[in-house]
Amino acid sequence: MSATLILLRHGESEWNAKNLFTGWVDVKLTAKGEDEARRGGSLLTEAGLLPDVLHTSLQRRAINTAELALAEAGRSWIPVKRHWRLNERHYGALQGKNKAETLEQYGEEQFMTWRRSYDTPPPEIEPGSEFGQDADPRYADLPPELMPRTECLKDVLERMLPYWYDGIVPDLNAGRTVLVAAHGNSLRALVKHLDGISDEEIVSLNIPTGMPLKYELDENTLQPLVKGGEYLDPEAAAEAAAAVAAQGKK
Amino acid sequence: MSATLILLRHGESEWNAKNLFTGWVDVKLTAKGEDEARRGGSLLTEAGLLPDVLHTSLQRRAINTAELALAEAGRSWIPVKRHWRLNERHYGALQGKNKAETLEQYGEEQFMTWRRSYDTPPPEIEPGSEFGQDADPRYADLPPELMPRTECLKDVLERMLPYWYDGIVPDLNAGRTVLVAAHGNSLRALVKHLDGISDEEIVSLNIPTGMPLKYELDENTLQPLVKGGEYLDPEAAAEAAAAVAAQGKK
Repeated sequence: MSATLILLRHGESEWNAKNLFTGWVDVKLTAKGEDEARRGGSLLTEAGLLPDVLHTSLQRRAINTAELALAEAGRSWIPVKRHWRLNERHYGALQGKNKAETLEQYGEEQFMTWRRSYDTPPPEIEPGSEFGQDADPRYADLPPELMPRTECLKDVLERMLPYWYDGIVPDLNAGRTVLVAAHGNSLRALVKHLDGISDEEIVSLNIPTGMPLKYELDENTLQPLVKGGEYLDPEAAAEAAAAVAAQGKK
Repeated sequence: MSATLILLRHGESEWNAKNLFTGWVDVKLTAKGEDEARRGGSLLTEAGLLPDVLHTSLQRRAINTAELALAEAGRSWIPVKRHWRLNERHYGALQGKNKAETLEQYGEEQFMTWRRSYDTPPPEIEPGSEFGQDADPRYADLPPELMPRTECLKDVLERMLPYWYDGIVPDLNAGRTVLVAAHGNSLRALVKHLDGISDEEIVSLNIPTGMPLKYELDENTLQPLVKGGEYLDPEAAAEAAAAVAAQGKK
Protein backbone atom coordinates (compact mmCIF):
# COMPACT_ATOMS: atom_id res chain seq x y z
CA MET A 1 0.00 0.00 0.00
CA SER A 2 1.08 3.52 -0.74
CA ALA A 3 -0.45 6.92 -0.26
CA THR A 4 -1.45 8.92 -3.33
CA LEU A 5 -0.85 12.64 -3.57
CA ILE A 6 -1.77 14.68 -6.64
CA LEU A 7 -0.36 18.17 -7.09
CA LEU A 8 -2.05 20.60 -9.44
CA ARG A 9 -0.78 24.07 -10.24
CA HIS A 10 -3.56 26.43 -11.31
CA GLY A 11 -4.19 27.03 -15.01
CA GLU A 12 -3.07 30.21 -16.76
CA SER A 13 -4.16 33.32 -14.88
CA GLU A 14 -4.83 36.79 -16.24
CA TRP A 15 -1.46 37.90 -14.95
CA ASN A 16 0.41 34.84 -16.23
CA ALA A 17 -0.97 35.91 -19.61
CA LYS A 18 0.15 39.52 -19.06
CA ASN A 19 3.57 38.37 -17.76
CA LEU A 20 3.15 40.18 -14.42
CA PHE A 21 4.44 39.10 -11.01
CA THR A 22 1.30 38.01 -9.18
CA GLY A 23 2.07 36.54 -5.75
CA TRP A 24 -0.80 37.19 -3.38
CA VAL A 25 -2.82 39.31 -5.80
CA ASP A 26 -6.07 37.40 -6.37
CA VAL A 27 -6.29 37.34 -10.17
CA LYS A 28 -8.69 35.19 -12.15
CA LEU A 29 -8.03 32.35 -14.56
CA THR A 30 -8.08 33.13 -18.28
CA ALA A 31 -10.35 31.12 -20.60
CA LYS A 32 -7.21 29.16 -21.52
CA GLY A 33 -6.56 28.56 -17.82
CA GLU A 34 -10.10 27.26 -17.38
CA ASP A 35 -9.54 24.87 -20.28
CA GLU A 36 -6.28 23.70 -18.73
CA ALA A 37 -8.13 23.00 -15.49
CA ARG A 38 -10.78 20.93 -17.26
CA ARG A 39 -8.04 19.07 -19.15
CA GLY A 40 -6.41 18.34 -15.79
CA GLY A 41 -9.71 16.82 -14.66
CA SER A 42 -9.90 14.68 -17.80
CA LEU A 43 -6.38 13.41 -17.16
CA LEU A 44 -7.39 12.41 -13.62
CA THR A 45 -10.41 10.55 -14.99
CA GLU A 46 -8.39 8.79 -17.71
CA ALA A 47 -5.79 7.73 -15.12
CA GLY A 48 -8.52 6.44 -12.78
CA LEU A 49 -7.19 8.82 -10.12
CA LEU A 50 -10.16 9.85 -7.98
CA PRO A 51 -9.33 12.39 -5.28
CA ASP A 52 -11.05 11.81 -1.93
CA VAL A 53 -10.23 15.23 -0.51
CA LEU A 54 -9.07 18.59 -1.83
CA HIS A 55 -6.70 21.09 -0.26
CA THR A 56 -6.40 24.56 -1.80
CA SER A 57 -4.87 27.93 -1.10
CA LEU A 58 -7.12 30.93 -0.45
CA GLN A 59 -6.54 32.23 -3.97
CA ARG A 60 -9.21 31.98 -6.62
CA ARG A 61 -6.94 30.81 -9.43
CA ALA A 62 -6.12 27.63 -7.49
CA ILE A 63 -9.64 27.22 -6.07
CA ASN A 64 -11.36 27.66 -9.43
CA THR A 65 -8.84 25.34 -11.13
CA ALA A 66 -9.70 22.63 -8.63
CA GLU A 67 -13.43 23.25 -9.03
CA LEU A 68 -13.26 22.91 -12.81
CA ALA A 69 -10.98 19.86 -12.68
CA LEU A 70 -13.17 18.09 -10.11
CA ALA A 71 -16.37 18.93 -12.00
CA GLU A 72 -14.81 17.36 -15.09
CA ALA A 73 -13.86 14.30 -13.06
CA GLY A 74 -17.32 14.04 -11.45
CA ARG A 75 -15.85 14.67 -7.99
CA SER A 76 -17.28 18.08 -7.07
CA TRP A 77 -18.66 16.53 -3.88
CA ILE A 78 -15.40 15.70 -2.10
CA PRO A 79 -14.54 17.59 1.08
CA VAL A 80 -12.40 20.69 0.62
CA LYS A 81 -10.06 22.50 2.99
CA ARG A 82 -8.39 25.82 2.26
CA HIS A 83 -5.42 27.48 3.89
CA TRP A 84 -3.29 30.56 3.29
CA ARG A 85 -0.20 28.43 3.88
CA LEU A 86 -0.74 26.96 0.39
CA ASN A 87 -0.79 30.43 -1.20
CA GLU A 88 1.66 31.48 -3.87
CA ARG A 89 4.92 33.09 -2.80
CA HIS A 90 4.41 36.72 -1.81
CA TYR A 91 6.42 38.66 -4.38
CA GLY A 92 6.83 41.76 -2.23
CA ALA A 93 7.35 45.00 -4.11
CA LEU A 94 7.42 43.09 -7.41
CA GLN A 95 3.68 42.29 -7.22
CA GLY A 96 1.95 43.90 -10.19
CA LYS A 97 5.21 44.53 -12.08
CA ASN A 98 5.84 43.26 -15.60
CA LYS A 99 8.44 40.47 -15.67
CA ALA A 100 10.03 41.53 -18.95
CA GLU A 101 10.26 45.18 -17.85
CA THR A 102 11.70 44.13 -14.49
CA LEU A 103 14.29 42.01 -16.30
CA GLU A 104 15.20 44.93 -18.53
CA GLN A 105 15.30 47.44 -15.68
CA TYR A 106 17.33 45.43 -13.17
CA GLY A 107 19.27 43.04 -15.39
CA GLU A 108 19.28 39.27 -15.54
CA GLU A 109 21.29 38.63 -12.37
CA GLN A 110 19.05 40.67 -10.08
CA PHE A 111 15.95 39.42 -11.87
CA MET A 112 16.90 35.77 -11.49
CA THR A 113 17.90 36.34 -7.87
CA TRP A 114 14.46 37.73 -7.05
CA ARG A 115 12.73 35.13 -9.17
CA ARG A 116 14.57 32.00 -8.20
CA SER A 117 17.05 32.57 -5.38
CA TYR A 118 16.22 30.16 -2.60
CA ASP A 119 16.80 32.55 0.25
CA THR A 120 16.82 36.13 -1.06
CA PRO A 121 13.38 37.75 -1.05
CA PRO A 122 12.48 40.75 -3.22
CA PRO A 123 12.04 44.13 -1.43
CA GLU A 124 9.01 44.28 0.86
CA ILE A 125 5.71 45.55 -0.46
CA GLU A 126 4.86 49.08 0.75
CA PRO A 127 1.99 49.38 3.25
CA GLY A 128 -1.10 50.58 1.41
CA SER A 129 0.17 49.40 -1.99
CA GLU A 130 -2.61 48.76 -4.47
CA PHE A 131 -1.14 45.28 -4.90
CA GLY A 132 -1.09 44.49 -1.17
CA GLN A 133 -3.60 42.45 0.84
CA ASP A 134 -3.85 44.50 4.03
CA ALA A 135 -7.57 45.10 3.50
CA ASP A 136 -8.36 41.65 2.14
CA PRO A 137 -11.06 40.04 4.33
CA ARG A 138 -9.70 36.54 3.79
CA TYR A 139 -6.63 37.46 5.81
CA ALA A 140 -8.47 39.48 8.43
CA ASP A 141 -7.91 36.82 11.10
CA LEU A 142 -4.23 36.33 10.26
CA PRO A 143 -2.00 37.83 12.98
CA PRO A 144 0.10 40.62 11.44
CA GLU A 145 3.34 38.84 12.27
CA LEU A 146 2.26 35.94 10.03
CA MET A 147 1.18 38.16 7.12
CA PRO A 148 4.01 38.11 4.57
CA ARG A 149 5.29 41.36 3.09
CA THR A 150 7.71 39.51 0.77
CA GLU A 151 8.94 35.94 0.55
CA CYS A 152 11.75 33.87 -0.89
CA LEU A 153 11.18 30.18 -1.55
CA LYS A 154 12.74 29.33 1.81
CA ASP A 155 10.09 31.47 3.51
CA VAL A 156 7.38 29.69 1.53
CA LEU A 157 8.71 26.28 2.54
CA GLU A 158 8.78 27.27 6.19
CA ARG A 159 5.23 28.61 6.25
CA MET A 160 3.86 25.83 4.03
CA LEU A 161 5.27 22.86 5.99
CA PRO A 162 3.03 23.25 9.08
CA TYR A 163 0.00 22.82 6.81
CA TRP A 164 1.60 19.83 5.10
CA TYR A 165 2.08 18.13 8.44
CA ASP A 166 -1.12 19.23 10.18
CA GLY A 167 -3.57 19.47 7.27
CA ILE A 168 -2.49 17.11 4.49
CA VAL A 169 -0.51 14.30 6.11
CA PRO A 170 -3.47 13.18 8.29
CA ASP A 171 -5.55 12.71 5.13
CA LEU A 172 -2.77 10.68 3.50
CA ASN A 173 -2.38 8.60 6.64
CA ALA A 174 -6.13 7.93 6.60
CA GLY A 175 -5.68 6.35 3.15
CA ARG A 176 -7.28 9.18 1.20
CA THR A 177 -6.19 10.17 -2.29
CA VAL A 178 -5.29 13.82 -1.77
CA LEU A 179 -5.46 16.59 -4.37
CA VAL A 180 -3.51 19.76 -3.59
CA ALA A 181 -4.44 22.65 -5.88
CA ALA A 182 -1.95 25.44 -5.39
CA HIS A 183 0.75 27.55 -7.02
CA GLY A 184 4.10 27.43 -8.76
CA ASN A 185 6.10 28.23 -5.67
CA SER A 186 4.05 26.62 -2.90
CA LEU A 187 4.20 23.40 -4.95
CA ARG A 188 7.93 23.82 -5.65
CA ALA A 189 8.41 24.12 -1.90
CA LEU A 190 6.43 20.95 -1.29
CA VAL A 191 8.29 19.06 -4.03
CA LYS A 192 11.61 20.24 -2.57
CA HIS A 193 10.56 18.80 0.76
CA LEU A 194 9.21 15.53 -0.65
CA ASP A 195 12.10 14.82 -3.02
CA GLY A 196 14.84 16.17 -0.76
CA ILE A 197 16.02 18.60 -3.42
CA SER A 198 18.96 20.80 -2.44
CA ASP A 199 18.73 24.58 -2.13
CA GLU A 200 20.82 24.84 -5.32
CA GLU A 201 18.94 22.31 -7.42
CA ILE A 202 15.47 23.65 -6.65
CA VAL A 203 16.31 26.83 -8.57
CA SER A 204 15.98 25.03 -11.90
CA LEU A 205 12.80 23.08 -11.08
CA ASN A 206 9.65 24.43 -12.71
CA ILE A 207 6.09 23.17 -12.39
CA PRO A 208 3.77 23.67 -15.35
CA THR A 209 0.19 24.96 -15.03
CA GLY A 210 -2.80 22.63 -15.08
CA MET A 211 -0.85 19.36 -15.25
CA PRO A 212 -1.62 16.83 -12.51
CA LEU A 213 1.58 15.54 -10.91
CA LYS A 214 1.10 12.26 -9.07
CA TYR A 215 3.25 11.10 -6.18
CA GLU A 216 2.94 7.62 -4.76
CA LEU A 217 4.33 7.89 -1.23
CA ASP A 218 5.54 5.18 1.10
CA GLU A 219 2.68 4.66 3.51
CA ASN A 220 4.93 4.83 6.55
CA THR A 221 7.54 7.43 5.72
CA LEU A 222 5.51 9.39 3.12
CA GLN A 223 8.68 9.44 1.01
CA PRO A 224 8.09 9.35 -2.77
CA LEU A 225 8.41 5.86 -4.26
CA VAL A 226 9.58 7.56 -7.47
CA LYS A 227 11.57 10.74 -7.03
CA GLY A 228 9.95 13.64 -8.86
CA GLY A 229 6.59 11.90 -9.13
CA GLU A 230 4.87 11.27 -12.42
CA TYR A 231 3.05 13.77 -14.65
CA LEU A 232 -0.12 12.28 -16.05
CA ASP A 233 0.79 13.80 -19.43
CA PRO A 234 4.61 13.79 -19.29
CA GLU A 235 5.30 15.16 -22.76
CA ALA A 236 3.01 18.14 -22.36
CA ALA A 237 4.44 18.74 -18.87
CA ALA A 238 8.03 18.82 -20.12
CA GLU A 239 7.16 21.34 -22.83
CA ALA A 240 5.21 23.50 -20.42
CA ALA A 241 7.94 23.46 -17.74
CA ALA A 242 10.44 24.69 -20.32
CA ALA A 243 8.06 27.54 -21.14
CA VAL A 244 7.81 28.50 -17.45
CA ALA A 245 11.62 28.56 -17.21
CA ALA A 246 11.77 30.98 -20.15
CA GLN A 247 9.31 33.45 -18.59
CA GLY A 248 10.39 37.05 -18.44
CA LYS A 249 12.37 36.51 -21.62
CA LYS A 250 9.69 37.83 -23.92
CA MET B 1 -27.59 42.27 15.95
CA SER B 2 -29.14 39.51 13.87
CA ALA B 3 -27.77 36.45 12.12
CA THR B 4 -27.80 36.37 8.33
CA LEU B 5 -28.72 33.24 6.41
CA ILE B 6 -28.84 33.11 2.61
CA LEU B 7 -30.60 30.24 0.87
CA LEU B 8 -29.82 29.47 -2.76
CA ARG B 9 -31.52 26.80 -4.82
CA HIS B 10 -29.31 25.52 -7.64
CA GLY B 11 -29.78 26.91 -11.14
CA GLU B 12 -31.58 24.99 -13.87
CA SER B 13 -30.25 21.45 -14.22
CA GLU B 14 -30.25 19.21 -17.26
CA TRP B 15 -33.23 17.34 -15.83
CA ASN B 16 -35.13 20.48 -14.82
CA ALA B 17 -34.83 21.36 -18.52
CA LYS B 18 -36.02 17.90 -19.57
CA ASN B 19 -38.86 17.98 -16.99
CA LEU B 20 -37.66 14.76 -15.30
CA PHE B 21 -37.88 13.86 -11.61
CA THR B 22 -34.28 14.11 -10.42
CA GLY B 23 -33.98 13.58 -6.68
CA TRP B 24 -30.62 12.03 -5.85
CA VAL B 25 -29.51 11.60 -9.47
CA ASP B 26 -26.41 13.78 -9.86
CA VAL B 27 -27.22 15.77 -12.98
CA LYS B 28 -25.30 18.82 -14.19
CA LEU B 29 -26.38 22.42 -14.54
CA THR B 30 -27.43 23.63 -17.98
CA ALA B 31 -25.74 26.70 -19.49
CA LYS B 32 -28.84 28.61 -18.38
CA GLY B 33 -28.41 27.20 -14.87
CA GLU B 34 -24.80 28.37 -14.84
CA ASP B 35 -25.95 31.85 -15.85
CA GLU B 36 -28.57 31.82 -13.08
CA ALA B 37 -25.85 30.92 -10.60
CA ARG B 38 -23.63 33.81 -11.72
CA ARG B 39 -26.63 36.15 -11.56
CA GLY B 40 -27.20 34.95 -8.00
CA GLY B 41 -23.62 35.94 -7.23
CA SER B 42 -24.13 39.38 -8.76
CA LEU B 43 -27.23 39.88 -6.62
CA LEU B 44 -25.20 39.03 -3.50
CA THR B 45 -22.56 41.56 -4.52
CA GLU B 46 -25.10 44.28 -5.28
CA ALA B 47 -26.78 43.69 -1.91
CA GLY B 48 -23.42 43.80 -0.11
CA LEU B 49 -24.15 40.32 1.24
CA LEU B 50 -20.81 38.60 1.66
CA PRO B 51 -21.06 34.98 2.80
CA ASP B 52 -18.45 33.90 5.35
CA VAL B 53 -19.08 30.19 5.01
CA LEU B 54 -20.82 27.89 2.55
CA HIS B 55 -22.85 24.76 3.22
CA THR B 56 -23.83 22.54 0.28
CA SER B 57 -25.37 19.17 -0.42
CA LEU B 58 -23.27 16.44 -2.03
CA GLN B 59 -24.89 17.06 -5.41
CA ARG B 60 -23.05 18.82 -8.18
CA ARG B 61 -25.91 21.07 -9.26
CA ALA B 62 -25.91 22.75 -5.84
CA ILE B 63 -22.12 22.65 -5.45
CA ASN B 64 -21.43 24.12 -8.90
CA THR B 65 -24.13 26.77 -8.41
CA ALA B 66 -22.41 27.90 -5.22
CA GLU B 67 -18.99 27.85 -6.90
CA LEU B 68 -20.18 30.05 -9.77
CA ALA B 69 -22.09 32.44 -7.49
CA LEU B 70 -19.15 32.82 -5.11
CA ALA B 71 -16.67 33.29 -7.96
CA GLU B 72 -18.91 36.09 -9.26
CA ALA B 73 -19.00 37.62 -5.77
CA GLY B 74 -15.21 37.28 -5.29
CA ARG B 75 -15.74 34.87 -2.36
CA SER B 76 -14.38 31.60 -3.74
CA TRP B 77 -12.06 31.43 -0.75
CA ILE B 78 -14.62 30.99 2.04
CA PRO B 79 -14.70 27.68 3.92
CA VAL B 80 -17.12 25.10 2.56
CA LYS B 81 -18.84 22.16 4.23
CA ARG B 82 -20.91 19.56 2.42
CA HIS B 83 -23.44 17.07 3.74
CA TRP B 84 -25.89 14.56 2.26
CA ARG B 85 -28.53 15.86 4.68
CA LEU B 86 -28.83 18.93 2.43
CA ASN B 87 -29.50 16.76 -0.65
CA GLU B 88 -32.67 17.01 -2.69
CA ARG B 89 -35.61 14.85 -1.72
CA HIS B 90 -35.15 11.26 -2.90
CA TYR B 91 -37.91 10.74 -5.43
CA GLY B 92 -37.93 6.94 -5.13
CA ALA B 93 -39.21 5.07 -8.17
CA LEU B 94 -40.03 8.37 -9.88
CA GLN B 95 -36.35 9.27 -10.34
CA GLY B 96 -35.62 9.50 -14.05
CA LYS B 97 -39.30 9.66 -15.04
CA ASN B 98 -40.80 12.51 -17.08
CA LYS B 99 -43.08 14.73 -15.02
CA ALA B 100 -45.61 15.35 -17.81
CA GLU B 101 -45.80 11.65 -18.68
CA THR B 102 -46.18 10.74 -15.02
CA LEU B 103 -48.99 13.27 -14.70
CA GLU B 104 -50.72 11.81 -17.77
CA GLN B 105 -50.22 8.20 -16.68
CA TYR B 106 -51.30 8.52 -13.06
CA GLY B 107 -53.62 11.55 -13.13
CA GLU B 108 -53.35 14.85 -11.32
CA GLU B 109 -54.36 13.64 -7.86
CA GLN B 110 -51.73 10.89 -7.63
CA PHE B 111 -49.17 13.14 -9.32
CA MET B 112 -49.71 16.01 -6.89
CA THR B 113 -49.71 13.60 -3.95
CA TRP B 114 -46.29 12.28 -4.93
CA ARG B 115 -45.02 15.71 -5.81
CA ARG B 116 -46.27 17.78 -2.92
CA SER B 117 -47.92 15.65 -0.23
CA TYR B 118 -46.17 16.39 3.02
CA ASP B 119 -46.12 12.84 4.30
CA THR B 120 -46.77 10.42 1.43
CA PRO B 121 -43.59 9.31 -0.32
CA PRO B 122 -43.55 7.87 -3.86
CA PRO B 123 -42.90 4.12 -4.24
CA GLU B 124 -39.37 3.05 -3.27
CA ILE B 125 -36.67 2.88 -5.90
CA GLU B 126 -35.80 -0.69 -6.93
CA PRO B 127 -32.40 -1.98 -5.82
CA GLY B 128 -30.04 -1.89 -8.79
CA SER B 129 -32.08 0.77 -10.61
CA GLU B 130 -30.06 2.78 -13.10
CA PHE B 131 -31.32 5.89 -11.29
CA GLY B 132 -30.28 4.67 -7.83
CA GLN B 133 -27.16 5.62 -5.84
CA ASP B 134 -26.20 2.25 -4.33
CA ALA B 135 -22.82 2.28 -6.09
CA ASP B 136 -22.18 6.01 -5.67
CA PRO B 137 -18.87 6.50 -3.83
CA ARG B 138 -20.05 9.67 -2.13
CA TYR B 139 -22.51 7.63 -0.07
CA ALA B 140 -20.17 4.69 0.53
CA ASP B 141 -19.77 5.58 4.22
CA LEU B 142 -23.49 6.15 4.79
CA PRO B 143 -25.01 3.31 6.87
CA PRO B 144 -27.66 1.53 4.78
CA GLU B 145 -30.41 2.40 7.26
CA LEU B 146 -29.75 6.11 6.58
CA MET B 147 -29.68 5.76 2.79
CA PRO B 148 -33.11 6.89 1.51
CA ARG B 149 -34.99 4.74 -1.00
CA THR B 150 -37.79 7.30 -1.28
CA GLU B 151 -38.77 10.38 0.67
CA CYS B 152 -41.70 12.67 1.31
CA LEU B 153 -41.05 16.24 2.49
CA LYS B 154 -41.56 15.14 6.10
CA ASP B 155 -38.71 12.65 5.67
CA VAL B 156 -36.52 15.40 4.21
CA LEU B 157 -37.26 17.71 7.13
CA GLU B 158 -36.40 15.00 9.65
CA ARG B 159 -33.07 14.09 8.04
CA MET B 160 -32.17 17.71 7.25
CA LEU B 161 -32.74 19.16 10.73
CA PRO B 162 -29.78 17.44 12.45
CA TYR B 163 -27.47 19.18 9.98
CA TRP B 164 -29.23 22.49 10.53
CA TYR B 165 -28.64 22.23 14.25
CA ASP B 166 -25.18 20.63 14.22
CA GLY B 167 -23.64 22.11 11.05
CA ILE B 168 -25.28 25.44 10.28
CA VAL B 169 -26.51 26.90 13.58
CA PRO B 170 -22.99 26.98 15.09
CA ASP B 171 -21.82 29.14 12.19
CA LEU B 172 -24.79 31.50 12.65
CA ASN B 173 -24.13 31.66 16.37
CA ALA B 174 -20.51 32.55 15.64
CA GLY B 175 -21.76 35.60 13.75
CA ARG B 176 -20.98 34.29 10.28
CA THR B 177 -23.07 35.12 7.23
CA VAL B 178 -24.06 31.66 6.07
CA LEU B 179 -24.83 30.62 2.49
CA VAL B 180 -26.72 27.34 2.06
CA ALA B 181 -26.70 26.08 -1.54
CA ALA B 182 -29.15 23.25 -1.87
CA HIS B 183 -32.35 22.05 -3.52
CA GLY B 184 -36.04 22.79 -3.96
CA ASN B 185 -37.17 20.39 -1.28
CA SER B 186 -34.32 20.51 1.22
CA LEU B 187 -34.78 24.30 1.22
CA ARG B 188 -38.59 24.02 1.47
CA ALA B 189 -38.04 21.82 4.51
CA LEU B 190 -35.72 24.40 6.05
CA VAL B 191 -38.11 27.26 5.29
CA LYS B 192 -40.99 25.26 6.80
CA HIS B 193 -38.94 24.88 9.96
CA LEU B 194 -37.80 28.52 10.09
CA ASP B 195 -41.16 30.10 9.31
CA GLY B 196 -43.26 27.58 11.23
CA ILE B 197 -45.33 26.76 8.14
CA SER B 198 -48.04 24.14 8.63
CA ASP B 199 -48.01 20.77 6.89
CA GLU B 200 -50.90 21.97 4.73
CA GLU B 201 -49.50 25.37 3.79
CA ILE B 202 -46.06 24.10 2.79
CA VAL B 203 -47.65 22.28 -0.16
CA SER B 204 -48.10 25.52 -2.06
CA LEU B 205 -44.68 27.03 -1.26
CA ASN B 206 -42.21 26.94 -4.15
CA ILE B 207 -38.62 28.12 -4.23
CA PRO B 208 -37.25 29.39 -7.54
CA THR B 209 -33.83 28.39 -8.91
CA GLY B 210 -30.79 30.63 -8.60
CA MET B 211 -32.47 33.38 -6.55
CA PRO B 212 -30.78 34.24 -3.24
CA LEU B 213 -33.30 34.27 -0.40
CA LYS B 214 -32.08 36.22 2.63
CA TYR B 215 -33.25 35.59 6.18
CA GLU B 216 -32.31 37.87 9.02
CA LEU B 217 -32.69 35.74 12.15
CA ASP B 218 -33.01 36.80 15.75
CA GLU B 219 -29.56 36.26 17.19
CA ASN B 220 -30.89 34.39 20.22
CA THR B 221 -33.82 32.37 18.93
CA LEU B 222 -32.74 32.16 15.27
CA GLN B 223 -36.36 32.93 14.39
CA PRO B 224 -36.84 34.98 11.18
CA LEU B 225 -37.29 38.70 11.81
CA VAL B 226 -39.43 38.78 8.65
CA LYS B 227 -41.44 35.67 7.94
CA GLY B 228 -40.59 34.24 4.51
CA GLY B 229 -37.33 36.11 4.28
CA GLU B 230 -36.52 38.46 1.44
CA TYR B 231 -35.60 37.58 -2.14
CA LEU B 232 -32.83 39.81 -3.41
CA ASP B 233 -34.75 40.14 -6.68
CA PRO B 234 -38.37 39.79 -5.51
CA GLU B 235 -40.10 40.31 -8.86
CA ALA B 236 -38.02 37.72 -10.67
CA ALA B 237 -38.46 35.33 -7.73
CA ALA B 238 -42.27 35.61 -7.80
CA GLU B 239 -42.37 34.89 -11.53
CA ALA B 240 -39.99 31.96 -11.19
CA ALA B 241 -41.88 30.45 -8.24
CA ALA B 242 -45.07 30.48 -10.30
CA ALA B 243 -43.24 28.62 -13.06
CA VAL B 244 -42.07 25.96 -10.58
CA ALA B 245 -45.64 25.49 -9.38
CA ALA B 246 -46.78 24.88 -12.97
CA GLN B 247 -44.18 22.15 -13.62
CA GLY B 248 -45.45 18.89 -15.04
CA LYS B 249 -48.18 20.83 -16.82
CA LYS B 250 -46.35 21.12 -20.10
